[in-house]
Amino acid sequence: MLIVMSHRATEAELDAVVKAVQDMGLRATPIPGSERTAIGVLGNEGYVDDLTIRDLPGIKEILHVSKPYKLVSRDFHPQSSVVNVRGVAIGEGCRPIVAAGPCAVEGEEQIVKTALAVKAAGADLLRGGAFKPRTGPHTFQGLREEGLRLLALARKESGLPIVTEVMSPENVGVVAEYADLLQVGARNMQNFDLLKELGRIRKPVLLKRGMSATIEEFLSSAEYILTGGNTEVILCERGIRTFETATRNTMDLSVVPLIKELSHLPIMVDPSHATGKRSLVPPMTKAALVAGAHGILIEVHPEPEKALSDGPQSLTFQGFAALMDDVRKLNSFLHF
Amino acid sequence: MLIVMSHRATEAELDAVVKAVQDMGLRATPIPGSERTAIGVLGNEGYVDDLTIRDLPGIKEILHVSKPYKLVSRDFHPQSSVVNVRGVAIGEGCRPIVAAGPCAVEGEEQIVKTALAVKAAGADLLRGGAFKPRTGPHTFQGLREEGLRLLALARKESGLPIVTEVMSPENVGVVAEYADLLQVGARNMQNFDLLKELGRIRKPVLLKRGMSATIEEFLSSAEYILTGGNTEVILCERGIRTFETATRNTMDLSVVPLIKELSHLPIMVDPSHATGKRSLVPPMTKAALVAGAHGILIEVHPEPEKALSDGPQSLTFQGFAALMDDVRKLNSFLHF
Amino acid sequence: MLIVMSHRATEAELDAVVKAVQDMGLRATPIPGSERTAIGVLGNEGYVDDLTIRDLPGIKEILHVSKPYKLVSRDFHPQSSVVNVRGVAIGEGCRPIVAAGPCAVEGEEQIVKTALAVKAAGADLLRGGAFKPRTGPHTFQGLREEGLRLLALARKESGLPIVTEVMSPENVGVVAEYADLLQVGARNMQNFDLLKELGRIRKPVLLKRGMSATIEEFLSSAEYILTGGNTEVILCERGIRTFETATRNTMDLSVVPLIKELSHLPIMVDPSHATGKRSLVPPMTKAALVAGAHGILIEVHPEPEKALSDGPQSLTFQGFAALMDDVRKLNSFLHF
Amino acid sequence: MLIVMSHRATEAELDAVVKAVQDMGLRATPIPGSERTAIGVLGNEGYVDDLTIRDLPGIKEILHVSKPYKLVSRDFHPQSSVVNVRGVAIGEGCRPIVAAGPCAVEGEEQIVKTALAVKAAGADLLRGGAFKPRTGPHTFQGLREEGLRLLALARKESGLPIVTEVMSPENVGVVAEYADLLQVGARNMQNFDLLKELGRIRKPVLLKRGMSATIEEFLSSAEYILTGGNTEVILCERGIRTFETATRNTMDLSVVPLIKELSHLPIMVDPSHATGKRSLVPPMTKAALVAGAHGILIEVHPEPEKALSDGPQSLTFQGFAALMDDVRKLNSFLHF
Repeated sequence: MLIVMSHRATEAELDAVVKAVQDMGLRATPIPGSERTAIGVLGNEGYVDDLTIRDLPGIKEILHVSKPYKLVSRDFHPQSSVVNVRGVAIGEGCRPIVAAGPCAVEGEEQIVKTALAVKAAGADLLRGGAFKPRTGPHTFQGLREEGLRLLALARKESGLPIVTEVMSPENVGVVAEYADLLQVGARNMQNFDLLKELGRIRKPVLLKRGMSATIEEFLSSAEYILTGGNTEVILCERGIRTFETATRNTMDLSVVPLIKELSHLPIMVDPSHATGKRSLVPPMTKAALVAGAHGILIEVHPEPEKALSDGPQSLTFQGFAALMDDVRKLNSFLHF
Repeated sequence: MLIVMSHRATEAELDAVVKAVQDMGLRATPIPGSERTAIGVLGNEGYVDDLTIRDLPGIKEILHVSKPYKLVSRDFHPQSSVVNVRGVAIGEGCRPIVAAGPCAVEGEEQIVKTALAVKAAGADLLRGGAFKPRTGPHTFQGLREEGLRLLALARKESGLPIVTEVMSPENVGVVAEYADLLQVGARNMQNFDLLKELGRIRKPVLLKRGMSATIEEFLSSAEYILTGGNTEVILCERGIRTFETATRNTMDLSVVPLIKELSHLPIMVDPSHATGKRSLVPPMTKAALVAGAHGILIEVHPEPEKALSDGPQSLTFQGFAALMDDVRKLNSFLHF
Repeated sequence: MLIVMSHRATEAELDAVVKAVQDMGLRATPIPGSERTAIGVLGNEGYVDDLTIRDLPGIKEILHVSKPYKLVSRDFHPQSSVVNVRGVAIGEGCRPIVAAGPCAVEGEEQIVKTALAVKAAGADLLRGGAFKPRTGPHTFQGLREEGLRLLALARKESGLPIVTEVMSPENVGVVAEYADLLQVGARNMQNFDLLKELGRIRKPVLLKRGMSATIEEFLSSAEYILTGGNTEVILCERGIRTFETATRNTMDLSVVPLIKELSHLPIMVDPSHATGKRSLVPPMTKAALVAGAHGILIEVHPEPEKALSDGPQSLTFQGFAALMDDVRKLNSFLHF
Repeated sequence: MLIVMSHRATEAELDAVVKAVQDMGLRATPIPGSERTAIGVLGNEGYVDDLTIRDLPGIKEILHVSKPYKLVSRDFHPQSSVVNVRGVAIGEGCRPIVAAGPCAVEGEEQIVKTALAVKAAGADLLRGGAFKPRTGPHTFQGLREEGLRLLALARKESGLPIVTEVMSPENVGVVAEYADLLQVGARNMQNFDLLKELGRIRKPVLLKRGMSATIEEFLSSAEYILTGGNTEVILCERGIRTFETATRNTMDLSVVPLIKELSHLPIMVDPSHATGKRSLVPPMTKAALVAGAHGILIEVHPEPEKALSDGPQSLTFQGFAALMDDVRKLNSFLHF
């Protein structure tokens, strides 16, 4: 940590800061400059909580060198993690996986038909929402536990492991009973009580990046789950909110190689939510694979024009099968 | 609702869209233009859920005229609402109120001392966090239920009603038992299970705007609570996330007069979180009052330099008392 | 400057960085930590250009303590500057001024009538665009030099000094011939050839903040003008671009007190462009004054519904006169 | 165009709007709804300038169906354009090209050596800045005309056509004398006088997207150049400004397939500026190609650690050669 003093800080203020650092059991090394003095803080292990010093008079700025996360960091865990979802391996060195299915589970025929279709086209996992976060209260909110039962049925019929969202700490138990991979949606990335509860279970978690979450906040949220003891976490970029409204969100694809530098956790990409536009899903799926994503999440619906949510970004069965042909060719080029 | 067809849409596609609209029990009026045809949709009451039509071939864009919220809208409730928090009236026509206190409740002495000090300076409510949302798991997470008890004690000593945050549906009960006003933090603005639970109680709720929430999403979240039957909702602008990092967030003060046009609910402002910088809190408090805010939320701490969270943006007792002098003068100028 | 080494940096890499710093004529002080070593750089005067070191192997991050601007900084010029625009003083300690007028000069009657009306209502300056930046080429582009002549005529009739935009280095001469205050629009904040040209003249400049400019970039653009020798610069916040589309831009009012801490230059606010909505202009004008703005820029048009640009955000004469009544009362409360 | 009336609009207000539309020579079709009336506007050719109506009393909102650009739109020019840069074809159906070279031309040896190295590695164009836009005035501003001469020399030695930036209308002549492709930088995307000047020449232009420019604004800026008569325009995504600071900008790669739907113009990508980080350039180059980019702009420098600008994002000769090997393999997979 480096403490930068104001160029009008007095000697007494400098001394008080040095003393406060020493009271924390750390060493303080003043570094006088031409305009102002800085104080290097030494002896810490990991991130320093600066609460007892940051507000002392004469301080201009505090620069942190260590990060607020540790367990998820590649610095302390150099080897890439591979997460196993009911026999499907996800992570560096594995063939990138594809999870496909409707935004929301709407009924038995819809989900079973979709499961069989995406399985036939080559998908590795079935996705589908039973608990649905919706902007307003007057739209379809999901089939809830009935949706979970239908997903389990679709798994039985298709053999595909299932991934579905959990929105509340109190539902972690019931969702974990059915799901093979529990998804935390973008709106809940900083629902810390939910993250803590997910740290207590022993099932894999798919953590989506919040709409306006920095990489540091994203990794810190994953840190909550690992701190609880659950190390089976997969990250997922799903687009961030920016000034641009031509796409539903802005897909921040550069975070794929960046997160692979910073963390050992696998990283997936959701081009359906990131773009919100069916025609953009195939090119961005392929771009994500080439950028190094460990998996892709794609919305597929038997009749997108009748979908109860996210129709405009869902692929048809035919569209998905065509995309999977391209994905297979691309993977073989990429040596998977 | 207006459906804009692609300029390459065929007659058959146009007919299919018209039929789909009629299947919804609505009237469709084609409006041919020089480049493309649009279809006006008539006969709806309120927002039209476009799910069965938005994905039909030939459609370029769908423009909604109605909003996804209704109960919170001034269109349908022209008279401004006033919310009563244990005897303190908040809303249009009332003197703007000030809620003050520490970011987090840290101990009995800290919270009681602060309560008495802000009361003496003229505050109307005591704020303080018992359940604390923190970016990373390795920092102070709040005193939880013990914090609620200390807040109740501080209320008894000072006479000030208390406002405190609730983070999880399962804690709504216990927080409602102690708090006079339940706060939903920015990170939970779209925690829909929490909003639904708050719709079931009969205590006022302070709903903070999410970091990247549009006004429409903000009001839609309030709509969740009103839909549940709880009409005692106060909105709160607390800064949005933008590219600018010189302040902690960007205070979007224009939403105060804008929300007063769109909704009948009271709107408060939190300059402490919006700016993240102590020296900016007094000028922005006064600006918010002049812009028409119905109340202000200010962080105050006996020793900001030792605060367990948000020290750099907290006012000292002296700083707060000086600001309250200015607030009183300003209010008397504004005729309150 | 602090150079943070990777925790896997070798001794040789550390030595190479130390040597590179010394080659710049500066001193390097290694600060070993538990996880990684940092290197404090001493002996610099002002901002260090890190180009010869920032890319050396083993470096994780470089933290700058000094800022890339100096002449505009309050650190080196503690006393607030007051800019004189043909007898109208703008800056700290002066009564906040109001510049009013149409977005674009459209004809003699329009501009003279407006000048007399805003003068009668109490405006200090007349604003009006002769050279107009427009998003697309198929809309009205301004009357150009003819517009300047009409502004000069309106000045003669009303006695109000005039402020108008200059878009190109080659037009600085002709605009400076007519204008009392030359405005640089948001889209040209980083038109560096224009800024350099404005550094060569001896007339005051009103520099608007770019749509996505940080405070540091904003002040660095002002630094261009001062570096050229022209110290008569007034800054102007006019809203930034964010995800929110309910207002035309997001007025970042907190920068008013913040810039007053960082710089000695006067700072004005343009609530017309910041909000884009007529009804929001009066409350945000008053909020800006209370936040400490040294002046306000307001769009006024005789018939806003017929304005060739920016009609929806322009006040009518009556609306402007009513607002000026409030402004006078507020100023007398604020002791001006 | 659809005009949405307020639900409190009077009959007289409705009639006034209908009349105003008719005064524009267009037809107005009222569409009464349950809550409010809308007015469809018919008979227009292209975008309607709404200036004489948008501000009439009773209007709530105006929804535009047509876009403010036409010449660049695929609607009116369905066939993809191919731009020829001194014999190098850029556009749909052509092998994607690579333009490589230093951020800034620094001297003869540097630019000639780089030209030969990138040519040997397979680059199609040489890039290099002679006129440099820099945030602050105290850093290197480019060699200007001397830099142009050095670029021409490097072209002679290597045979590579050259692309370089032009910052001011008055320099368009001299830059066009030397350059094969004139680049407009992000900061000048809305420097309309510059765009108009570029519309008058008959050399290809590379237009970079502004830091906070929407797709609509980006295409409208290109429309300026085409309106002037110069149809040889190539678009370039170079990252947008968002809240995320982990990368220099946020690469908005989805715009590549999106712009190919909206416009017939070629679209390139600049991963060096978009990411600002050397290690991210190779994966994002490959992702851009797979997403359909018609060309890539890459910064390469003989000694990035000594570069006078943008060192941290420049590739070394070896790094570039390795990337070009991958690019060739990828192109052969993509059938170029």
